[in-house]
Amino acid sequence: MVSLASPIGRTDTRGSIEPILAVTASDMTRVNELILAMAGSNVELIPEIAEHLISSGGKRLRPMLTIASALAHGYDGDAHVKLAASVEFMHTATLLHDDVVDESDLRRGKKTARTIWGNQASVLVGDFLLGQAFKMMVEVGSLAALDILSTASAVNAEGEVWQLSAAKHMTTSEADYLAVVDAKTAALFSAAAEVGPVVAGAGTAEREAMRRYGRNLGLAFQLVDDVLDYDGSATDLGKNTGDDFREGKITLPVILAYEAGGEEERSFWRDAMERGRNDDEALQRAKALIRRHGALDATIARARLYGDAAHEAATSLPASPGRDALLGVVAFCIDRVS
Amino acid sequence: MVSLASPIGRTDTRGSIEPILAVTASDMTRVNELILAMAGSNVELIPEIAEHLISSGGKRLRPMLTIASALAHGYDGDAHVKLAASVEFMHTATLLHDDVVDESDLRRGKKTARTIWGNQASVLVGDFLLGQAFKMMVEVGSLAALDILSTASAVNAEGEVWQLSAAKHMTTSEADYLAVVDAKTAALFSAAAEVGPVVAGAGTAEREAMRRYGRNLGLAFQLVDDVLDYDGSATDLGKNTGDDFREGKITLPVILAYEAGGEEERSFWRDAMERGRNDDEALQRAKALIRRHGALDATIARARLYGDAAHEAATSLPASPGRDALLGVVAFCIDRVS
Repeated sequence: MVSLASPIGRTDTRGSIEPILAVTASDMTRVNELILAMAGSNVELIPEIAEHLISSGGKRLRPMLTIASALAHGYDGDAHVKLAASVEFMHTATLLHDDVVDESDLRRGKKTARTIWGNQASVLVGDFLLGQAFKMMVEVGSLAALDILSTASAVNAEGEVWQLSAAKHMTTSEADYLAVVDAKTAALFSAAAEVGPVVAGAGTAEREAMRRYGRNLGLAFQLVDDVLDYDGSATDLGKNTGDDFREGKITLPVILAYEAGGEEERSFWRDAMERGRNDDEALQRAKALIRRHGALDATIARARLYGDAAHEAATSLPASPGRDALLGVVAFCIDRVS
Repeated sequence: MVSLASPIGRTDTRGSIEPILAVTASDMTRVNELILAMAGSNVELIPEIAEHLISSGGKRLRPMLTIASALAHGYDGDAHVKLAASVEFMHTATLLHDDVVDESDLRRGKKTARTIWGNQASVLVGDFLLGQAFKMMVEVGSLAALDILSTASAVNAEGEVWQLSAAKHMTTSEADYLAVVDAKTAALFSAAAEVGPVVAGAGTAEREAMRRYGRNLGLAFQLVDDVLDYDGSATDLGKNTGDDFREGKITLPVILAYEAGGEEERSFWRDAMERGRNDDEALQRAKALIRRHGALDATIARARLYGDAAHEAATSLPASPGRDALLGVVAFCIDRVS
């Protein structure tokens, strides 16, 4: 059903996360050590919550992007390890605050920190991790990297507030939604990739290419995630189908199905997303409507376009294991729904 | 009752906030403009909440310290304005998150942001202001200032988490409490003062002096605030007597009264602070016990010691209107309870 030509779709080999795991393995060991050290505190609650988050099965994709992007630009120093840990702390702080804001009880099938330790601890430990993230960035001493990451932090928060005010309104347009994804997901992916050439001392063109790579990868990544939430056949790490629906999160498949539907269907969506009528029966109907209107394929088609743009941005790099790792992630991301 | 000799207590002229208001007036106009600009956003909720906070009658003491401290070191550039606005944003972000954590409905007699816009918006707008604070610091381009302020941010959050885990336990010792005040209040006062000599290009001794000045002023400031909450004769800007008691905040006067009391009194304090038996009758009894044990005078005595240390640190500065402004704040702070 997807008619868009795609260089990724055309390749025979499926994308793989293995190259980036291999390329970043030794540096990621140091990133993980640094994360544990910087999450340490005499205040017991902090390492307790940090440990919970660290062991909860995240892929550490964002810090791997920083490491791979630095290596792909020939970097052989130490700063990328601290920046990668900063990126992961920024992400973790966001998750802690997100779970409070969304009142989420589960993340990746595990209890959220707020269910175990309460909203208060989640807010404050998030603040602590953000403070530690900035401390590590300052230690690196690159004002350009600080600029990129602090801007991502402000953009992310602005997107969150926007989403809060617009949330649960079925009037949300595709453009609105993409703007939120840009701020909430793509901004940190973009920053994580861009600080690679920055610490490697590469030029403006290289920075711009990595910024585009990260942003487009982030957009593709989120849209694929949105699809997986309605695609029963897909198995993702610990994510259950229907989570977004039950939380009333209006994602692209929902927006596209709503736009394509008649008044009776729109009324169903408003009841489900705005008024919380989202039991299992409603989920089944939502899935059927999304299928009928081809909303998953349409979402995948958009994800592919972003994936293509990310792929193209990274092909400007000279051939290296780092470049292959970055390219592999894009294909892997799209292949999750292929 | 207070037997401690104090250079401040011995002076005839009462301390005044007027000199610092006068010295910082023109720069504070620019700080306020910058605050409004950086709190701007297309996301309406952000300027709405920021405007509420900005108009809620805070003294802006922390940014004034940054301005006065920079001027006292002969600074004539622009960076102190951005740093002062950053300091105020950091403080405001903390207030937003604090009110969520403490479930406070009122601050300075006005409804808190969380009562009007909800906890979610308060968490996220706090994150946004923190992000903007870091962006402004990065624009200034001083890694030393970034180091000082990001460390203060992490220390503050760590103190908050500690307070959360230890909160409402009457086993809190004076040392425990002072450690929390050090992290929650004194760290930002200290950082606000220290970035002054940093942007002015002053040396290590000057930085150390301002760090001591700020820290000791912060400690004195908080202890005086604690006293005012139980001292019916004092009038502070919008603060109502008994707020701390009703919120179950264990402050120094309470700790000292508890330590001096017998088992029956201790049982009263545990009921009040740990189990929330804090109605008006309980407040009257609490005030009576605090008076009987001289806990307010003992708290004031400690505040004076910190005030003396702050005063001494600032006297190392060459005579200037900036120095007088810094000294005036110390005396003003202590005089609120004299």
